[in-house]
Amino acid sequence: MIYLDHNATTAPAPAVVEAMLSVLTGCWANASSQHGPGQDAKRVLVKARATVAQVLGCKTAEVIFTSGATEANHLAVRGLLAAARLTRRRVLFGSIEHAGHLKLARSLTTAGVQVDLMPVLADGTLDLAAAARLMGPDLALVSLMAANNETGVLMPVAQVAEMAHAAGALLHVDATQLIGKLPFNFADYGADAVSLSAHKFHGPKGVGALLLRQGVPCVAQTIGIQERGRRGGTENLPGIVGLATALVLLGDVSQEAARQTHLRNALEAGLTRALPETHIWCQSVPRLPGTSYLRFGRLAVDVVLQRLETLGIAASSGAACSSEGATASHVLSAMGVPDDQALGAVRFSMGRTTTQGEVISLLSTVPPLLEPLMREEFATAP
Amino acid sequence: MIYLDHNATTAPAPAVVEAMLSVLTGCWANASSQHGPGQDAKRVLVKARATVAQVLGCKTAEVIFTSGATEANHLAVRGLLAAARLTRRRVLFGSIEHAGHLKLARSLTTAGVQVDLMPVLADGTLDLAAAARLMGPDLALVSLMAANNETGVLMPVAQVAEMAHAAGALLHVDATQLIGKLPFNFADYGADAVSLSAHKFHGPKGVGALLLRQGVPCVAQTIGIQERGRRGGTENLPGIVGLATALVLLGDVSQEAARQTHLRNALEAGLTRALPETHIWCQSVPRLPGTSYLRFGRLAVDVVLQRLETLGIAASSGAACSSEGATASHVLSAMGVPDDQALGAVRFSMGRTTTQGEVISLLSTVPPLLEPLMREEFATAP
Repeated sequence: MIYLDHNATTAPAPAVVEAMLSVLTGCWANASSQHGPGQDAKRVLVKARATVAQVLGCKTAEVIFTSGATEANHLAVRGLLAAARLTRRRVLFGSIEHAGHLKLARSLTTAGVQVDLMPVLADGTLDLAAAARLMGPDLALVSLMAANNETGVLMPVAQVAEMAHAAGALLHVDATQLIGKLPFNFADYGADAVSLSAHKFHGPKGVGALLLRQGVPCVAQTIGIQERGRRGGTENLPGIVGLATALVLLGDVSQEAARQTHLRNALEAGLTRALPETHIWCQSVPRLPGTSYLRFGRLAVDVVLQRLETLGIAASSGAACSSEGATASHVLSAMGVPDDQALGAVRFSMGRTTTQGEVISLLSTVPPLLEPLMREEFATAP
Repeated sequence: MIYLDHNATTAPAPAVVEAMLSVLTGCWANASSQHGPGQDAKRVLVKARATVAQVLGCKTAEVIFTSGATEANHLAVRGLLAAARLTRRRVLFGSIEHAGHLKLARSLTTAGVQVDLMPVLADGTLDLAAAARLMGPDLALVSLMAANNETGVLMPVAQVAEMAHAAGALLHVDATQLIGKLPFNFADYGADAVSLSAHKFHGPKGVGALLLRQGVPCVAQTIGIQERGRRGGTENLPGIVGLATALVLLGDVSQEAARQTHLRNALEAGLTRALPETHIWCQSVPRLPGTSYLRFGRLAVDVVLQRLETLGIAASSGAACSSEGATASHVLSAMGVPDDQALGAVRFSMGRTTTQGEVISLLSTVPPLLEPLMREEFATAP
């Protein structure tokens, strides 16, 4: 199989599975227990936290382990808002955040919080001028993704951090798609809180973290003594060790990013050369290295994905969490793409296991398969 | 090591680790993805849910997978309260709930919700008459543990369910300590929502579930499309499969319960015979099979635990989550036990791996070690 859906999830690395196995069988005590096995577990937890802090450029006290990015996003948005001054009740979200995160935004609206959405431009980048107009003294928090999961477009975190801080507001960044794909350092990043999920960078599912800048007040959403009182529940030690191991394995992220950028560009060049009706979104703006979001002329995405499957290629119509393909991507809609074009959107997302051979294979098999369909579609188009 | 802290956590069963390993390496796609690997993952998820439903006596639609019991408790209490009628704003908690759960109760109070605590009697059982007086037409929800994690005392779930339902309120039960130790069937249980955690019955950490009776409205706390919109976040498939596998391995729970009851009674009889100053709490009321909560005369718990460690015995002073031993157990305080006695509380909690040989070994090594200390303590007592 040629797996090109790494933005949905990645395979746990063998060393990650090995590390988890070692904890599951040899270090299973409760890290809060005072006896020897409990203290052994606690030492492993402390070490994993130190590793995470070292790789991500933060302090150990700034790491809050969670069950994943979704929980981390909830903790950041609800926890920071709950701790904000009562004169600051407004929240800004990106308009192209993950569908689940926008649902959280709507739940805030239902609860009486004013939520404004920062629009994007036609090229998929954030409309910074519009974002600037939405800042203000009533603003508690800005919540923005680091990179869009569908288009791969990078958001201007540094600029938004500056604007938010100038307005006296905090910035939360959902870096689920960025971490593991591009270099990241919390200390230099500008954001006050950053969410991440291990399964997006060859770690296990069911574990993630919120990095929370020291001194920033945040009200715990899952209450308990663990994680310095900021997230309750017995620590998921196998998962946490899996997350830490996956981060260490990332190694030189820049080098891998360059490799994937090269492969992605070769894929896009090859497809547009063979199938000129192929349209690639956001091609001219800074994107994640391995993400390509495109449509094959006017072919419907379900037709394309089904044909790709016959070739053993796994791609997606966008986010896994809204991958039914029945409605147009809210990301493309926000960019002003008409529904009939958006309904053809196919996402290829490469990863560390993607090879040049796979790209060559795809380029030799996909165009001959889709070309007749695209020609037929073109002939019958209104 | 003689591990007698199974109420804190249990070792993942080898078959559980095996099943998780198989998912981690062979079925790692996102269960929400539409391609072949995603659909394979979805089938595994559907099967695991069916297994959980079958073992626990509920419908598949009644299972909401979470990151553990703490999250399930939050979902139940906050979600059911948010869905309750506006005329019902009061909540009842047991006074001896897990410390983390009582923190959740306090956070509700801070948020303006009236929370009342149901007291216990001196024998550790729920004061049903007092509980009855706390029912009323303004009550939204009762939240009660199935069995206390420290004393092991079973709570009268059926009676409280009847009382709560007669008052038009719902019942949430935290069955974290019960499931795996005593027979359980959701359909007959009386509660509207039941929390459980896999790591308490030889499953992995980081996964649990809320069983939610069909038709009972509950507002999602972690928002997303997964779990029928009731709990967002990419499904932790290895964890979920581990949970399901652990449930299947439970087999005949009654038989194992009888075995542990026998061992526990032998332990208690042996200790009180050898060390007559030993006091066992809640010995005369229905308890979990393998839990024994006691004090060795007036010996401080840290002294006892440290001596037990020299014998390779891992026990605890109560809940792992509050096991510093510096303050008296809130459970014993609620029973009216004076602090100076409560500060000697030692919990032995047996499990499936506990053997008769371990109990015999403990009975032959612990009394000679503690007897001189107890004699000395007795001589110097005021």
